[in-house]
Amino acid sequence: MSFAPALDAVVAAHAALRARRPLVQALTNTVSTNFMANVLLSAGASPAMVDNPEEAALFAGIADGVLINLGTPTAAQVEAMRLAAAAAEKAGKPWVLDPIAAGGLPWRGGVAAELLQFRPAAVRGNASEIIGLAGLGGGARGVDSSADPAAAVPAARDLLAHAAAVSASGPVDHVVGRVGSRTVLVRIGGGSALLPRVTATGCSLGALTAAYAAVAPDPLTGLVAAHVHFAVAAELAEAVAPRPGSFAAAFLDALDAVDEAVLRERAKIEPAVELA
Amino acid sequence: MSFAPALDAVVAAHAALRARRPLVQALTNTVSTNFMANVLLSAGASPAMVDNPEEAALFAGIADGVLINLGTPTAAQVEAMRLAAAAAEKAGKPWVLDPIAAGGLPWRGGVAAELLQFRPAAVRGNASEIIGLAGLGGGARGVDSSADPAAAVPAARDLLAHAAAVSASGPVDHVVGRVGSRTVLVRIGGGSALLPRVTATGCSLGALTAAYAAVAPDPLTGLVAAHVHFAVAAELAEAVAPRPGSFAAAFLDALDAVDEAVLRERAKIEPAVELA
Amino acid sequence: MSFAPALDAVVAAHAALRARRPLVQALTNTVSTNFMANVLLSAGASPAMVDNPEEAALFAGIADGVLINLGTPTAAQVEAMRLAAAAAEKAGKPWVLDPIAAGGLPWRGGVAAELLQFRPAAVRGNASEIIGLAGLGGGARGVDSSADPAAAVPAARDLLAHAAAVSASGPVDHVVGRVGSRTVLVRIGGGSALLPRVTATGCSLGALTAAYAAVAPDPLTGLVAAHVHFAVAAELAEAVAPRPGSFAAAFLDALDAVDEAVLRERAKIEPAVELA
Repeated sequence: MSFAPALDAVVAAHAALRARRPLVQALTNTVSTNFMANVLLSAGASPAMVDNPEEAALFAGIADGVLINLGTPTAAQVEAMRLAAAAAEKAGKPWVLDPIAAGGLPWRGGVAAELLQFRPAAVRGNASEIIGLAGLGGGARGVDSSADPAAAVPAARDLLAHAAAVSASGPVDHVVGRVGSRTVLVRIGGGSALLPRVTATGCSLGALTAAYAAVAPDPLTGLVAAHVHFAVAAELAEAVAPRPGSFAAAFLDALDAVDEAVLRERAKIEPAVELA
Repeated sequence: MSFAPALDAVVAAHAALRARRPLVQALTNTVSTNFMANVLLSAGASPAMVDNPEEAALFAGIADGVLINLGTPTAAQVEAMRLAAAAAEKAGKPWVLDPIAAGGLPWRGGVAAELLQFRPAAVRGNASEIIGLAGLGGGARGVDSSADPAAAVPAARDLLAHAAAVSASGPVDHVVGRVGSRTVLVRIGGGSALLPRVTATGCSLGALTAAYAAVAPDPLTGLVAAHVHFAVAAELAEAVAPRPGSFAAAFLDALDAVDEAVLRERAKIEPAVELA
Repeated sequence: MSFAPALDAVVAAHAALRARRPLVQALTNTVSTNFMANVLLSAGASPAMVDNPEEAALFAGIADGVLINLGTPTAAQVEAMRLAAAAAEKAGKPWVLDPIAAGGLPWRGGVAAELLQFRPAAVRGNASEIIGLAGLGGGARGVDSSADPAAAVPAARDLLAHAAAVSASGPVDHVVGRVGSRTVLVRIGGGSALLPRVTATGCSLGALTAAYAAVAPDPLTGLVAAHVHFAVAAELAEAVAPRPGSFAAAFLDALDAVDEAVLRERAKIEPAVELA
């Protein structure tokens, strides 16, 4: 019996997603909006990209979860991000930070550091982004171009000072969080090498994380469930579409097709490890 | 013989669309831009997303029709919307309002109310949006979460004070307008349950409405023709693609494939009803 | 033996693209962002749509090439364009201008004229756009609605005063540049009539041009290689997907599938012509 979220918890979170169809407010980059909305719809959630300063806070009170993605920030959108994050924290709505390139570009790095004060339920990034974000506090680590999520585990752990759970996604996703007094690492395999060949897949995983955080019993479970749903769908899609254009459509089909039986057959969750 | 637009009028409008390839200026949300442009191109129109305050009015004089969609408004885009709507009205170009969430979010509600003063040729929304928009005037109805377009007919009728024709789209589209001194309701069946599973399909229907309004003899005919073309294409697409990712591509293919024979075979226009 | 880039040069540029995966910064219109990023990824480059004034100049120093596309400019994005173009010129990074509608809309026409001062490596547009852009200087030509790229050759040649190479793309792409003291015209056939039926294909060709300019020995070779890769992929895609929705996905697949053997079999580069 595991001390961390495992297959049964993922299956339960998936059932909750389908039953509740959470409304996810996404303040995201211009490249990702359409694909992200379709990922949410196919997976079983509802998207709303309300990202202006006039409405962002109000809508964070209406939405079930909020995603903030720093891919192509503008001054106005950044203002909306601050307002949405503050409103989400105040209303007790889970919000997820996707800190694209925050470690390498000082202006958005400052934005990311400020947003962390509003205590995201989860942070999701690739290994470099997690390392870069963690380095913003102390300036120590900086940007690492490594693509190996394992290298980001110490940084992810540091970020638990700000967020309830953190993932570095990649060929094997590394998710870190707390279960009681334990700090645990959950690794999720599967997926597809085609995912990074389609733009906005990582961004869309961030949005799906916000959807699951809205329905799961805790952010760590939500983060694990989102990554498993994503990885299983990617594996299904790759089996029928071996190149990026057709893979993108097949992936949306597969997010829709994933059900309990598929999860139980294909989920690749490694036994959780307690971090010392 | 019908007193409202029926199959022959739809076929004629479709032929006019293909012959003239109207240029549609779309001021729309960030989620919809790419898919909407592809819907217009596949259906037989030309898109141009000119939505900055510096050029919006000038371009409304060049375009054949204008779509204004309130999905993700920014302060600058709203200024462009006012300028484009005013210029379209002045130049006698038909413009269409898609009042996404205007009934539920006060800031954009104010924008929508102001835009109605420029007398859109048509308003298109889902049932909740039509009810919400109608409620902005008197504050009476507010937002109704009902998805049944039939419930929006009274609101659509109220909006005829501002627009020549109004549709509440859904499983059965309900289109309301005037024919001479009569107020009529035209219902259009068909379509696909997959349409709401793909983001920006409703928004793109709004844009197609602007394209048809530019070539049809009157806004009501344009609105009916756009909904029929859309519903028939969705039906064709669903037959070959039963999940959302592949459906989106198949739907674009089908918008292109629809011709007079397909319209005559598959259009589901119920006999028009005169509203008391 | 040719005095201008021909098949061997294209094959070498393609190999360099795949080996180096250049990072392309794109400041582009809202319709194109997602598809353009996918075109770059499928072809073998890396996209980053950093287009705010706060980060555009810094990122131009990081990127291998920069695309500036005037499709849906905002005041803030235009400021970012100026900063990115200036930074690219200063850092010796190739940048490409795609002057959408610059000849027909005075505000963006002024922006385009100003940007030309930063000496783009290449300009890419359709025939009307190249004619329109060239006309901005002297006001003589204005906008020509002709779609025949051959008509744009004199304008393209005029633009060599500002850019190292210029293309007017269309059914037969016309690329103009200098080889030593010669001014040459290279024509590229192939492609597909479906390309203009899918939005943002031309814009994405502009981005691919920036990717090739970053790895080719000179801008003219980069421009020719980008157009050949694009045309060959379009031809492959049309063979399996005869309508626009499925063509778009097949085209991304084909950009990925193009390799040296496919280029050698299908490239349609006409013998270069020296312009008097």
